[in-house]
Amino acid sequence: MSDQSATPARIFTAALIVIGDEILSGRTHDKNIAQVATWLQVQGIRLKEVRVVADEEPAIIEAVNALRARNDYLFTTGGIGPTHDDITVDAIAAALGVAVEVHPEARAILEDYYTTRGGLTEARLRMARVPAGADLIPNRFTGAPGIRWGNIFIMAGVPSITAGMLEALTGTLEGGAPLLSETIGCWVGESEVADLLRQTEKSHEGCQIGSYPFWREGRTGANFVVRSTDADRLAACCAALSLGLEATGRAAVPGGI
Amino acid sequence: MSDQSATPARIFTAALIVIGDEILSGRTHDKNIAQVATWLQVQGIRLKEVRVVADEEPAIIEAVNALRARNDYLFTTGGIGPTHDDITVDAIAAALGVAVEVHPEARAILEDYYTTRGGLTEARLRMARVPAGADLIPNRFTGAPGIRWGNIFIMAGVPSITAGMLEALTGTLEGGAPLLSETIGCWVGESEVADLLRQTEKSHEGCQIGSYPFWREGRTGANFVVRSTDADRLAACCAALSLGLEATGRAAVPGGI
Repeated sequence: MSDQSATPARIFTAALIVIGDEILSGRTHDKNIAQVATWLQVQGIRLKEVRVVADEEPAIIEAVNALRARNDYLFTTGGIGPTHDDITVDAIAAALGVAVEVHPEARAILEDYYTTRGGLTEARLRMARVPAGADLIPNRFTGAPGIRWGNIFIMAGVPSITAGMLEALTGTLEGGAPLLSETIGCWVGESEVADLLRQTEKSHEGCQIGSYPFWREGRTGANFVVRSTDADRLAACCAALSLGLEATGRAAVPGGI
Repeated sequence: MSDQSATPARIFTAALIVIGDEILSGRTHDKNIAQVATWLQVQGIRLKEVRVVADEEPAIIEAVNALRARNDYLFTTGGIGPTHDDITVDAIAAALGVAVEVHPEARAILEDYYTTRGGLTEARLRMARVPAGADLIPNRFTGAPGIRWGNIFIMAGVPSITAGMLEALTGTLEGGAPLLSETIGCWVGESEVADLLRQTEKSHEGCQIGSYPFWREGRTGANFVVRSTDADRLAACCAALSLGLEATGRAAVPGGI
């Protein structure tokens, strides 16, 4: 579901499904959540939810159908390689109720890529399989393309390849006003300024304040991240917050600590 | 839903909800998924699904109610601090249909902790609020405890504090047979051995093989992770896979590359 905000700018939303037993077992530390989240910010699209699911068709189908319906865009990472545990394409096709077919352009890309690398085997040809009706997302690293089907973007799990696919998509998706953010740091325990944060957010419509505490060099501090799609509102909220922090006798550090 | 496997050992499952706008915006790179996943493996509990949701009550409620019903355990990280954006306790209480109350022991812990740190303010007292009927999870770092309610474990978002709460829970949860794993590396493109992987998995009941390709030093390789709850089956599957890899003229590297 994409919200209509009170301001004229429409908010575009996205969800991400990270597919892979290796993330759920703790063996591999996911890097795609942060990578996709950061990229979406720049596109002016808000990441609303992430799910990490196993290499199991029912789990993938459930997540795909839940998330594609209520977001403008759905991204997936993982499970599009040549081996038996790569079941993302089959699961998404099942979720969509369409057949799986070999995409002629993907086949041509793979034939070309593997000409000097031992030829296009049956296993490698798996990487040309797409849900019927799909388009391709270029992959300049390893040949095997990503897949676009409607509002679904099916990408590789290896972060460097995912990065290339995101780069290929940069600027091609309709997005709303980017969410702007400013960070203000302060050597203060967040609990000491909880009222200030709440009141500042409340009195600045269209702004959100997140509070991120830390302990460094034996001292307690926090970074306060102010977010808004409106630059003027953001600046006013940051100014008020800085004044409020300084009224407690501490320095407000622009850019954060 | 907890599966009953064909083997006598019951499989215990868990889900994790990571709560926080800062993860979805890409500002903070999540460390709790890998941390909780690794810890669960050691407890003999299988992580089935992770969701990352925003600091929004409806999103938290939906995820909590979906995941607590079909897993033996549900863990959450994030949103239990003293500031206005910390809404996890209220959202989970709403999901459970119970009131929020100040836990007397949590209050006492916080009073003690803040005695030498400026006293227990209204904001800090927020960290003693729990869904009615909850128990506490000790936090030896910063006083404010985690919360256990039924099969739900509500933990901090700061990874070092989460780690302390997990440590406090170690060995206290009923788990099944731990999932064992062995890694075999090989300097081979995974697509060249896709048939071998598929057939080896198929002929070794109770074993799963994951394939994780990489590119290093200008060469293509892969690590194959064989998983089973049965040590003998695991050993037999690894032996067969190693033989199969060596039959292609390459070395199978125990422990992975």
